[in-house]
Amino acid sequence: MRKLFHWPLDPASRLVRLVLAEKQLDFDLVVSPPWKPAEEVTRLYANPVGPVLIDQGQHGRVVANHTHAIIEFLEEQYRDVKVLPMLAPDRAEARRLWRWVETRFESEINGSILAERIAQAVQRTSAPDSAVLRRGAHALRGVLTYLNALCEHHSYLTGRQLTVADLAAAANLSALDYFGDVHWDNVPDLREWYVRVKSRPCFRDLLKDSLTGTKPAAHYADLDF
Amino acid sequence: MRKLFHWPLDPASRLVRLVLAEKQLDFDLVVSPPWKPAEEVTRLYANPVGPVLIDQGQHGRVVANHTHAIIEFLEEQYRDVKVLPMLAPDRAEARRLWRWVETRFESEINGSILAERIAQAVQRTSAPDSAVLRRGAHALRGVLTYLNALCEHHSYLTGRQLTVADLAAAANLSALDYFGDVHWDNVPDLREWYVRVKSRPCFRDLLKDSLTGTKPAAHYADLDF
Repeated sequence: MRKLFHWPLDPASRLVRLVLAEKQLDFDLVVSPPWKPAEEVTRLYANPVGPVLIDQGQHGRVVANHTHAIIEFLEEQYRDVKVLPMLAPDRAEARRLWRWVETRFESEINGSILAERIAQAVQRTSAPDSAVLRRGAHALRGVLTYLNALCEHHSYLTGRQLTVADLAAAANLSALDYFGDVHWDNVPDLREWYVRVKSRPCFRDLLKDSLTGTKPAAHYADLDF
Repeated sequence: MRKLFHWPLDPASRLVRLVLAEKQLDFDLVVSPPWKPAEEVTRLYANPVGPVLIDQGQHGRVVANHTHAIIEFLEEQYRDVKVLPMLAPDRAEARRLWRWVETRFESEINGSILAERIAQAVQRTSAPDSAVLRRGAHALRGVLTYLNALCEHHSYLTGRQLTVADLAAAANLSALDYFGDVHWDNVPDLREWYVRVKSRPCFRDLLKDSLTGTKPAAHYADLDF
């Protein structure tokens, strides 16, 4: 039995879903909104943040919180499909970029663009704060430019192999893309990369997500947008 | 040859130094201030943040940035002394707490208290902004209370064994303690824990650190403060 407490548009939850699906592991999804976590989650952690995985396997019952703890556990335990490269130098670079992506999105983008969009959709606030959106959009442009440069010469962000860094970037971008906030036209190489990642079977489930009361952008689930 | 680019009062750099020393690995230290990174570092990364490890070993040349990438590499490569527990459930909890500690300090405390103190010491700004210090102190009290509760019943934060979570908490607290910003009297169990961690050989080198122009608080290097 494997259970993931998640929230559909939380990028960290999306990343864990992608890794689980890439590894072809079955799991039950339980919705646990950030503003009202599931009771089982609050019994586990005083201040739960992000996805929580409960994995009952041969290794006993493992409870993990935070993408770092969850994904490193999955990578150690389920080795048929790997999301980290084999060689030490490549592993280090994939982990650096994974962490870089999560830190930049968390500290500069998700708290502004994504939070505003979600507040509007879920809590029915009036129009999003345009100054906050502008600040987030500026930070997002910088991140997109950097990621675009990384896939100018390779299929994936750290080279020829898909890693957790690609999944982390795709998880974060997909949440913004739901609201149409990623301007793909300015980053053609990254757009091609995103088509490639989005076309993988692991992505299917994410593209079916729908937030009550808010339709995704027209191209959200389009594999050749 | 192993080289760590660091800045003495950067908590992330301190954590990596503690892990290297705990594992009894030799390394050269090269100072690379956040506001003027060493040239070798800027050749490696466009926007370097935090410590960078270059490790030339049997596994080839590994370049790693961010505590996550550096420490997971060291743990995989050098197994004589471990900073993560053996069992999967305990590993998950140590990683969760490691990440929790780093995220809380980075997002709520280091940018306020530590940044103000360092600005005053290094850039010779006038008195620190008291509103910023108050905000940081409030966040720090919350973190200290939580950590104190964790070591009420055990020697270390996640149980009877020292893990990277202890080293992460000690690295962050030691930087604040340099300026006398940790009120240990209110958290007696955490104080005992800190005496225990600080007395380990891996801590020796950190206690000799000194920022030009600023003396550490009187008890900073005292093992029985």
